[in-house]
Amino acid sequence: MPRDGTTTRTRILDVAERLVIDNGFAATSVDEIIEASGTSKGSFFHHFSSKRDLAGELVQRYADADVAVLRRALAEVETVADPVERVLAFVGFFVDQADQLMTEQSNCLYVAALTERQLVSDGATGPVGRAVEAWRADFASLLDAALAARGRTGEVDSGALADHLFVTFEGAFLLCRSTGDPSHMRAQLTSFRALLAALLRE
Amino acid sequence: MPRDGTTTRTRILDVAERLVIDNGFAATSVDEIIEASGTSKGSFFHHFSSKRDLAGELVQRYADADVAVLRRALAEVETVADPVERVLAFVGFFVDQADQLMTEQSNCLYVAALTERQLVSDGATGPVGRAVEAWRADFASLLDAALAARGRTGEVDSGALADHLFVTFEGAFLLCRSTGDPSHMRAQLTSFRALLAALLRE
Repeated sequence: MPRDGTTTRTRILDVAERLVIDNGFAATSVDEIIEASGTSKGSFFHHFSSKRDLAGELVQRYADADVAVLRRALAEVETVADPVERVLAFVGFFVDQADQLMTEQSNCLYVAALTERQLVSDGATGPVGRAVEAWRADFASLLDAALAARGRTGEVDSGALADHLFVTFEGAFLLCRSTGDPSHMRAQLTSFRALLAALLRE
Repeated sequence: MPRDGTTTRTRILDVAERLVIDNGFAATSVDEIIEASGTSKGSFFHHFSSKRDLAGELVQRYADADVAVLRRALAEVETVADPVERVLAFVGFFVDQADQLMTEQSNCLYVAALTERQLVSDGATGPVGRAVEAWRADFASLLDAALAARGRTGEVDSGALADHLFVTFEGAFLLCRSTGDPSHMRAQLTSFRALLAALLRE
């Protein structure tokens, strides 16, 4: 085992992420995280100065992973020559991964973090806003190229339409929770793709 | 003042709803609700057996109000003869009210309730699922009529498309929170309407 503490730190973050996604931030105690990660109070506070500090690190790590998924999806569709097909392939990337995503997690960490005004007002959720901006900028570029190819530049707000992917993800997480049916993630992403296909058809 | 306790009960629910929408369920204590509503522990526990009991009542009341809004929107567009125009007027009803909604509240009570697995697993969020079903059934009827008018029956899943209104609301609440900009609610509902208009154009 490495002696630099990386493993313990990562294990605490992994366990905390799972507990927070399942139960929410306020409902997850430091004691619970310590017990579930098989560590000690001393070790926990060696790595994190407070629960608030842990929250900030969790959100930052989750947002970094989220932006990495965006880059992967963009790389995947880079070679699709037709700009309309590229938009549909980009959303299709997430449709294809929807079932897998919902097997791995029952909610989005963003939902848990944004629910608590305290975390929002003291800046712990700042990385969510920056991830939203990254998604908007890159997806809006794809949409602008597709709208231009159809001679429809300016007919819709491509920034708001790009944000609608974030909206679909977050709303679908809540739809899955409220109905107890994880298949809604795929159905909602599929609906969004069908609506985009209608918007971009010749 | 009425002596039947209705006023105190309603005041506790109103105050709790605002605190929970702002800060989340777990982050809101019974003591805080008692203080903010200017009541007493005795009075609180006369009306609610526990915080869990209050949570259930809050979700039920919020879901009832949500379904009442659905009925109001349906009544509003009932006289629109063309089924495609009726769908667009239905979503337009919510576009028109978006700014007002975001002045009144900073988040959806559903988000706060669904974040906590404990509330989900012990049934307190059951009314959310039933409200989702009511919206789906009624909006899907409007969509089916519009799709039939365009000869596109079966081309899209009208149930999933109807659920997309819930998804847009909930996702947009989170987008507003993560960016600190309440104007996203109107922009997202407008995007959804533009996408439906594209789907339903001749």
